[in-house]
Amino acid sequence: MSKVKLDEIDHQILDMLIDNTRTPFTDIAKKLLISAGTVHVRVKKMEEAGIIKGSSLTLDYVKLGYSFIAYIGIFLEKTHQTKFVLQRLKEIPYVTVAHITTGKFNIFCKIRAKDTTHAKNIIFKIDDIEGISRTETMISLEESINDKKRLMHTIFNEL
Amino acid sequence: MSKVKLDEIDHQILDMLIDNTRTPFTDIAKKLLISAGTVHVRVKKMEEAGIIKGSSLTLDYVKLGYSFIAYIGIFLEKTHQTKFVLQRLKEIPYVTVAHITTGKFNIFCKIRAKDTTHAKNIIFKIDDIEGISRTETMISLEESINDKKRLMHTIFNEL
Amino acid sequence: MSKVKLDEIDHQILDMLIDNTRTPFTDIAKKLLISAGTVHVRVKKMEEAGIIKGSSLTLDYVKLGYSFIAYIGIFLEKTHQTKFVLQRLKEIPYVTVAHITTGKFNIFCKIRAKDTTHAKNIIFKIDDIEGISRTETMISLEESINDKKRLMHTIFNEL
Amino acid sequence: MSKVKLDEIDHQILDMLIDNTRTPFTDIAKKLLISAGTVHVRVKKMEEAGIIKGSSLTLDYVKLGYSFIAYIGIFLEKTHQTKFVLQRLKEIPYVTVAHITTGKFNIFCKIRAKDTTHAKNIIFKIDDIEGISRTETMISLEESINDKKRLMHTIFNEL
Amino acid sequence: MSKVKLDEIDHQILDMLIDNTRTPFTDIAKKLLISAGTVHVRVKKMEEAGIIKGSSLTLDYVKLGYSFIAYIGIFLEKTHQTKFVLQRLKEIPYVTVAHITTGKFNIFCKIRAKDTTHAKNIIFKIDDIEGISRTETMISLEESINDKKRLMHTIFNEL
Amino acid sequence: MSKVKLDEIDHQILDMLIDNTRTPFTDIAKKLLISAGTVHVRVKKMEEAGIIKGSSLTLDYVKLGYSFIAYIGIFLEKTHQTKFVLQRLKEIPYVTVAHITTGKFNIFCKIRAKDTTHAKNIIFKIDDIEGISRTETMISLEESINDKKRLMHTIFNEL
Amino acid sequence: MSKVKLDEIDHQILDMLIDNTRTPFTDIAKKLLISAGTVHVRVKKMEEAGIIKGSSLTLDYVKLGYSFIAYIGIFLEKTHQTKFVLQRLKEIPYVTVAHITTGKFNIFCKIRAKDTTHAKNIIFKIDDIEGISRTETMISLEESINDKKRLMHTIFNEL
Amino acid sequence: MSKVKLDEIDHQILDMLIDNTRTPFTDIAKKLLISAGTVHVRVKKMEEAGIIKGSSLTLDYVKLGYSFIAYIGIFLEKTHQTKFVLQRLKEIPYVTVAHITTGKFNIFCKIRAKDTTHAKNIIFKIDDIEGISRTETMISLEESINDKKRLMHTIFNEL
Repeated sequence: MSKVKLDEIDHQILDMLIDNTRTPFTDIAKKLLISAGTVHVRVKKMEEAGIIKGSSLTLDYVKLGYSFIAYIGIFLEKTHQTKFVLQRLKEIPYVTVAHITTGKFNIFCKIRAKDTTHAKNIIFKIDDIEGISRTETMISLEESINDKKRLMHTIFNEL
Repeated sequence: MSKVKLDEIDHQILDMLIDNTRTPFTDIAKKLLISAGTVHVRVKKMEEAGIIKGSSLTLDYVKLGYSFIAYIGIFLEKTHQTKFVLQRLKEIPYVTVAHITTGKFNIFCKIRAKDTTHAKNIIFKIDDIEGISRTETMISLEESINDKKRLMHTIFNEL
Repeated sequence: MSKVKLDEIDHQILDMLIDNTRTPFTDIAKKLLISAGTVHVRVKKMEEAGIIKGSSLTLDYVKLGYSFIAYIGIFLEKTHQTKFVLQRLKEIPYVTVAHITTGKFNIFCKIRAKDTTHAKNIIFKIDDIEGISRTETMISLEESINDKKRLMHTIFNEL
Repeated sequence: MSKVKLDEIDHQILDMLIDNTRTPFTDIAKKLLISAGTVHVRVKKMEEAGIIKGSSLTLDYVKLGYSFIAYIGIFLEKTHQTKFVLQRLKEIPYVTVAHITTGKFNIFCKIRAKDTTHAKNIIFKIDDIEGISRTETMISLEESINDKKRLMHTIFNEL
Repeated sequence: MSKVKLDEIDHQILDMLIDNTRTPFTDIAKKLLISAGTVHVRVKKMEEAGIIKGSSLTLDYVKLGYSFIAYIGIFLEKTHQTKFVLQRLKEIPYVTVAHITTGKFNIFCKIRAKDTTHAKNIIFKIDDIEGISRTETMISLEESINDKKRLMHTIFNEL
Repeated sequence: MSKVKLDEIDHQILDMLIDNTRTPFTDIAKKLLISAGTVHVRVKKMEEAGIIKGSSLTLDYVKLGYSFIAYIGIFLEKTHQTKFVLQRLKEIPYVTVAHITTGKFNIFCKIRAKDTTHAKNIIFKIDDIEGISRTETMISLEESINDKKRLMHTIFNEL
Repeated sequence: MSKVKLDEIDHQILDMLIDNTRTPFTDIAKKLLISAGTVHVRVKKMEEAGIIKGSSLTLDYVKLGYSFIAYIGIFLEKTHQTKFVLQRLKEIPYVTVAHITTGKFNIFCKIRAKDTTHAKNIIFKIDDIEGISRTETMISLEESINDKKRLMHTIFNEL
Repeated sequence: MSKVKLDEIDHQILDMLIDNTRTPFTDIAKKLLISAGTVHVRVKKMEEAGIIKGSSLTLDYVKLGYSFIAYIGIFLEKTHQTKFVLQRLKEIPYVTVAHITTGKFNIFCKIRAKDTTHAKNIIFKIDDIEGISRTETMISLEESINDKKRLMHTIFNEL
């Protein structure tokens, strides 16, 4: 685990970046009464320590017509096909998450689709991957929580 | 659904932001041989159209000591408790995702924890929420895919 | 079981009505080279014998915006609530079919809804009926067969 | 979705047709104090708009000796056999409904049979279709609701 | 169904035979104040009508060292192997009952064994029958009811 | 376990009684070239040793209109209700067998009924017994083996 | 984790103790050509480092009449009863192992009993613990591996 | 079962050995006011009678870095592979227990591993054994009871 010791300034920088990754360093600097250079140095330090890996865009999937979310449990014919099947899943952009899991499934993944028909086509594409014997689908009726910010604040407060 | 029509320039901007949200607008401008102001206007347009909602930090959870991921299926005593239970789940920062789902579970959520013991404590906290009758946990042995970039490229290419 | 003996003419009338319930009796008469009165008498005879109960409109649910179909398995708290729960289900017009079944469910029903969100609301309404302890939903990705005509021809050919 | 705007007269015509598809247009005309021609024109308009697809005979299956209803969940060997298997199911007239579904089954269908022995033979025929690996049967002990009229009234009232 | 009409005397004879199949006809005759010949004629009549098929010995399986009872659910590779597998099951004398069933199993059977080890060997023998892909065993901890007499009295009272 | 040592004569007597319990002792005696008294003494000996408990009538349930067989798995609210629930089950004559079992059910029982509707009523009666929380029913499509004779011959041959 | 560094002598001592815990130190000393005192010092060191906790008697349970092993999955009414229920389980000496587990069970335990009837009584005692709603039992037909020695050798070889 | 009759002295010796297998015989002798030779003779007698089989080291697995425990249910392709698969499992030292079981699994085993990743590798090794078609894993969140001493005292008190 990272041995980086974060001070109060670091925490305040992180809190602002968690809330809005694109906050300009000058704004952060102004708020914390430090120089933009200092912000830059500290963010760089945290990136180099491996605490921050980068940042990713968040889209409004509903507005973009991608409101259909499903979880798919995959049963393999043989477990040694796991690596191969994961490679095939990576070729389907609608598969955003995939885990090797305990319990009845070998692989458990999450897809985003436009609607029922689109989901069916994605599921059929997955079902046809060599080595997959069967899949079970669970459909989301509402995405009630999708928020890593609370976790990030908690993790950084522990450092 | 959004009616915004994206042109070639918009797509190239999006592709760069997907790869690195913090790419300075001046860098984007330089690559596309346009002015930084134009980049700014176009990103603003896409934000106002609701296509881009913002950006979020990505952490190296393994380095930060949070390598344990589990999916938890929740059975409620009565469905009218759904809203209340989701509110309680939001108070647990380790719950990063929660869905109301079809199938045997009422709510399906994802947690990130430090290790088995930490996970046990989180699961116990969830189990003790009023209105929850039972939970089933599925543990991730490996997070093989966690990547929305492929989906983002696909969505934007369709616009 | 019905003791009515159907002759060749009856079968031909039934075959035409199965294909289009609203075929005018005069058209049927013309095709079979009999009088419209004869058609009327024979249809009446089959209605009185209880073979034909009536006819029902068929809608294009997809065009009407009702393309979402789900099957819902219901677990009751106690079986003596079955009658009461079925009465409540009848008050929800989106529940078009309901059976008391063997296997793990007490009641198994079918709903038609507009989309995922509408389905969620219907499922929540069902879940809140007094006496229902839990439901499990299975979503249709495609209505591949919905056709009683083949069965009707088969049944009548046996008479 | 259909853009047809229905007026009060259309709704009253539809309500009468839902209750009895074979109501003569002259009867409808008399009740609504309009001409039979007007009824004809309006029904035609709704058929052309795709709202009404046609009408189907309703039989008294119990009287006809077909009182046994079962739901059958089908597991396929490989999902790409779905189309082929559905084609085979269509050749069995006792299969009146079939869906491609989420959850543990690939295909979920409904059969009507004479009795336990007849059902066994139909299930055996289904089980023997190439590409089907296993089926699970759930038997109806009582068909408590089978009524689309409530839904139809609701849908038309929304138009 | 049998059309035989049973009178009071027939019922009294049946009641005595249900309680003890080997009751001599002379004893029955004495109790009912009729001749042994009459008893004989009436029993014969009921046998010919197919109401009584015969009688079977009842053993004290616990005393004989056969106290272990298990129910075994059988999954077949393909249903068309049902007849063949049932034939193989008949060759194992410890399989006393077997049904083709609805639900998840293809065949459901009952075995009597001496103890856990003996049961294991029988289950292994069943598992090795060609066409059986898997079995699930449910073990009896206590045979609480095994009594057809109550049913027999009920059936005869209805005739 | 019984210490009775059976000789060749005993075995031959048992084989004849297994095939037909009502075989007169004089017939057995004639075949084995021994006196009827000897047969009587030996049967008595085996009854006293507890090997034979009695005999029971076998009916033609199909001819008597009782062709519907179902297995019912019972979930109790609390296991200490087992004795009470078994007592209630004994009051339902259609319950011919009941076991306390391992696996997911607390009690597993077998019923014989006339048809689907009759079975539904029996299942409802069982479901309404105080202490039973839920039941699952598995229906027999064919009673393929119901034969204890093979087991009896095997057991006696071992003695 | 322990930081103790084991040398070749330690490993050889451990290997002998794994094979027979009661091997006198003088025997070990003789084999390794060191003094008994050295053996004593090194074992003490490993005990103090927490590597060795002690030793336990191994019985021949089959000879002692305890050949029946079962695994029992426990469903609690509420998870906050876990501690209380584990306390009650500890009072039943036949429960030798108990885990808080992921998956469908809250607690998963192992029992050793004399036979089916004894097991039933133990299961009933467990079922009657306040807070337990249901249990599922899986019975061992053969204890094929019960051997920690291979693991011990592996663990020590890694140190 | 063993016919050895244990007296009060034997019981006291056993109680001390259960608590600490390595208690020197001289200590036991002193406490019981008998000679060390007597202790030796009696322990030898119990070993020869097969009551005591030996003793095994108990390790502090958590301190040794082996805190991850999982139960794995194994489904075989065919049961006749049981012996072969068990042989393969024996070659994996992390598999400390394996049973042939009733219920849905063919074999049920227990593993000890270092952490999630180590467990995944062990599970993959098991999954790749020829003849295994699928496995299901249940992870221990806490080893709450692991204690055979209570059972040992109980068993010896019954002798």
